[in-house]
Amino acid sequence: MTWNRRHLLTIEELSLAEIEQVHATAAAFKTILKRSVKKVPALRGKTIVNLFLEPSTRTRMAFDMAAKRLSADVISFDAASSSTTKGETLRDTAENIQALNADMIVIRHAAAGSPLFLSKILDIPVVNAGDGAHEHPTQGLLDTFTMKERLGAMKGRKVVILGDILFSRVARSNIHALTKMGANVTLVGPSTLVPQWFTELGVAVSHDLKSALADAEVVMLLRIQHERQASSHFPSLGEYTSMFGLNKTRASWLNPKAIIMHPGPINRGVEIDSELADGERSVILEQVSNGLAVRMAALYLCAGGQPEHVTVVE
Amino acid sequence: MTWNRRHLLTIEELSLAEIEQVHATAAAFKTILKRSVKKVPALRGKTIVNLFLEPSTRTRMAFDMAAKRLSADVISFDAASSSTTKGETLRDTAENIQALNADMIVIRHAAAGSPLFLSKILDIPVVNAGDGAHEHPTQGLLDTFTMKERLGAMKGRKVVILGDILFSRVARSNIHALTKMGANVTLVGPSTLVPQWFTELGVAVSHDLKSALADAEVVMLLRIQHERQASSHFPSLGEYTSMFGLNKTRASWLNPKAIIMHPGPINRGVEIDSELADGERSVILEQVSNGLAVRMAALYLCAGGQPEHVTVVE
Amino acid sequence: MTWNRRHLLTIEELSLAEIEQVHATAAAFKTILKRSVKKVPALRGKTIVNLFLEPSTRTRMAFDMAAKRLSADVISFDAASSSTTKGETLRDTAENIQALNADMIVIRHAAAGSPLFLSKILDIPVVNAGDGAHEHPTQGLLDTFTMKERLGAMKGRKVVILGDILFSRVARSNIHALTKMGANVTLVGPSTLVPQWFTELGVAVSHDLKSALADAEVVMLLRIQHERQASSHFPSLGEYTSMFGLNKTRASWLNPKAIIMHPGPINRGVEIDSELADGERSVILEQVSNGLAVRMAALYLCAGGQPEHVTVVE
Repeated sequence: MTWNRRHLLTIEELSLAEIEQVHATAAAFKTILKRSVKKVPALRGKTIVNLFLEPSTRTRMAFDMAAKRLSADVISFDAASSSTTKGETLRDTAENIQALNADMIVIRHAAAGSPLFLSKILDIPVVNAGDGAHEHPTQGLLDTFTMKERLGAMKGRKVVILGDILFSRVARSNIHALTKMGANVTLVGPSTLVPQWFTELGVAVSHDLKSALADAEVVMLLRIQHERQASSHFPSLGEYTSMFGLNKTRASWLNPKAIIMHPGPINRGVEIDSELADGERSVILEQVSNGLAVRMAALYLCAGGQPEHVTVVE
Repeated sequence: MTWNRRHLLTIEELSLAEIEQVHATAAAFKTILKRSVKKVPALRGKTIVNLFLEPSTRTRMAFDMAAKRLSADVISFDAASSSTTKGETLRDTAENIQALNADMIVIRHAAAGSPLFLSKILDIPVVNAGDGAHEHPTQGLLDTFTMKERLGAMKGRKVVILGDILFSRVARSNIHALTKMGANVTLVGPSTLVPQWFTELGVAVSHDLKSALADAEVVMLLRIQHERQASSHFPSLGEYTSMFGLNKTRASWLNPKAIIMHPGPINRGVEIDSELADGERSVILEQVSNGLAVRMAALYLCAGGQPEHVTVVE
Repeated sequence: MTWNRRHLLTIEELSLAEIEQVHATAAAFKTILKRSVKKVPALRGKTIVNLFLEPSTRTRMAFDMAAKRLSADVISFDAASSSTTKGETLRDTAENIQALNADMIVIRHAAAGSPLFLSKILDIPVVNAGDGAHEHPTQGLLDTFTMKERLGAMKGRKVVILGDILFSRVARSNIHALTKMGANVTLVGPSTLVPQWFTELGVAVSHDLKSALADAEVVMLLRIQHERQASSHFPSLGEYTSMFGLNKTRASWLNPKAIIMHPGPINRGVEIDSELADGERSVILEQVSNGLAVRMAALYLCAGGQPEHVTVVE
């Protein structure tokens, strides 16, 4: 099957076949990354602009690394430096970047829908690196890649996503990917953060951690956003940890082969105990490694590459 | 003719023939940029340091992109990080960069004359990316490149530069380029911002927008600097827009084939209406694209390249 | 002799033979840097992460330049952007960088011992770019490289290190290198900043500048840290300059062939007069240049290169 998509905006709009194409391409890149010279010339001569208008260290580094492993040049346009363009619209900023002959834009923005907006006004590919509380598609793709690698086909598997779901683009992208892949997803957390209407997305909602974790094969934790603590709708960190923090006792409720996931950075002792974060069931660092391969796949495919050509390396 | 200049400091010191050499080299690079692999190996193995001691996003990105398209490595030394060198003189900073084996310095600095100063103490080429209210030579070269591309020879053409001329290095560099090229330049704006003594540079000064725009073939807008609003010498934004903002009525006074220019970033609704900024006459994004080619030309020529060799690509 | 070390953490742990291997490798790279194309393909395809969790401009630039001259890719993780990883432990940050497939980490950190800590938990090489008041090994290696280049073998040479020794990682690294090389080192400065217990490191301590400088062949100045002025233990800048600032009279006490060193950035008129900083005896800019070659050597050797292979260039 040919990959026909020029932008990666959401997982919601991807077909299951497209998700599998990204996964297959990422698997090939992962093999290449194990060599001593890890670069492929796939995007040689191309320049990718990382337009990160919300602070980010890890995702920006991951896209930067992915681009360099593909031999592309990278130019960063960070939140810090963008203060100098105050008053300029996102449209003007993006059109300027395109006029500067960039070959692709990777955008992170606080406003949901900004990547879609850019894809409509630009001629170059746009990759969403997180838009508000909407989607973070490469995170969803790397998480599901990691699950498949560990557990095999996800059809019928029980996956729990635990934490601040309401504002989480990571949760949304995973929900879309996992439901397309046939997994049984349960969202768990305080009712203020996991409202009932999420069931419209084809997932279950639970506020009872014990019954939700029972026999789950994947538990995906989300980062607790300290900055939300100001709101009285949100439990305090101590309250959250006492009710929903993953500790040894609670982890014992999981399926014996279950894996523990977290998109990072971890608040040790808050959403997860250190013993579990560093334990045998944790695949947290595998998620990071797989994220590199998945982002290489996303950049490569949106630049016009085809999954079946990835075996061609220098 | 051989290009003999190692530094690009001002347009004032360039001859007409040199301006035309930069334009010709930029035209060749522009052709190369249309290919699928847009890099030329001209500066392979060279390292260019972007010494930006005044905040800048767009110009820094443009120089960064230009250097990468020439296969050079780029190291950025930004205003933000330079806080750590507090107390170090510009001379010491620059001599250190040279001692680190840099092959060229691109400098932006709030003090007029700093690029000239560096060119006298360093052995490596220095390119001025804007020095105070003095000059911004690559901007003047890209603006005149864009005019020539649209209108042909500029001899006898009527060009209006409109806005905050007094503090504008963009205006100064364009005035020098355009008068050498034989254009008829009129500066327009409030008398506090367009003082009469500018006529000594061989241009006309006017405070009557309607008569100045009559039959102009180019109107170049300058960005209104919000930070100047504190001064009582300066009209408020609202006053400026009502008297000198370019809107549809005023644009109708221009020659039918006239082009509208702006160095960006645009304050939509202040110095120009959105309808005009995005309209058919606007060449604002062409300026950005041409800026890449012109900066490639500037870096290439100052590094010892010759205009007639640009056709040699990988 | 084969180079067997994967990390460069301190000079204290290096043998004299290892110091000489770094020096010899740096000398070879210095020759290469004089060519027109100054890059060697030694680390092509490798990605080095500069993890600078303390502000730095000069050292970061030097490592960045060194990595690029070796054809490596560089990803920077600066103090500024790291604010977004608040709450993440250094261990998690470092393990994430390794999981992202980085080939080497260069770390600067305010906590002494952090590079050692990382070397124990990571599988990739770690290079110390300054850890608290502990060590700054590449600085010590470039300083001693510069001394040897100017004076020949250092055995029995009289070296004075002058200034804020107590908090100086530069002083510590130089003390270890120089004592291994057989030099006679005297530390000089106010007693609050040069306590007597430093003699345990095999050096002399003096508070009498005149007798200490008498016939010294090297005087190495340290930067006065303005931020320490708040402490009443520290003399004011004026007091320091009047008692220990190097001026023409005091420099006349040195051996006629003596060299003057400073790691930069210089406080002109505080620890050294401009006339001396720019004079014939000053090797301050040579230190910077040699720093590039020494850092290339450090990166190359820790990445598995061998001194005898450096002659192989593209």
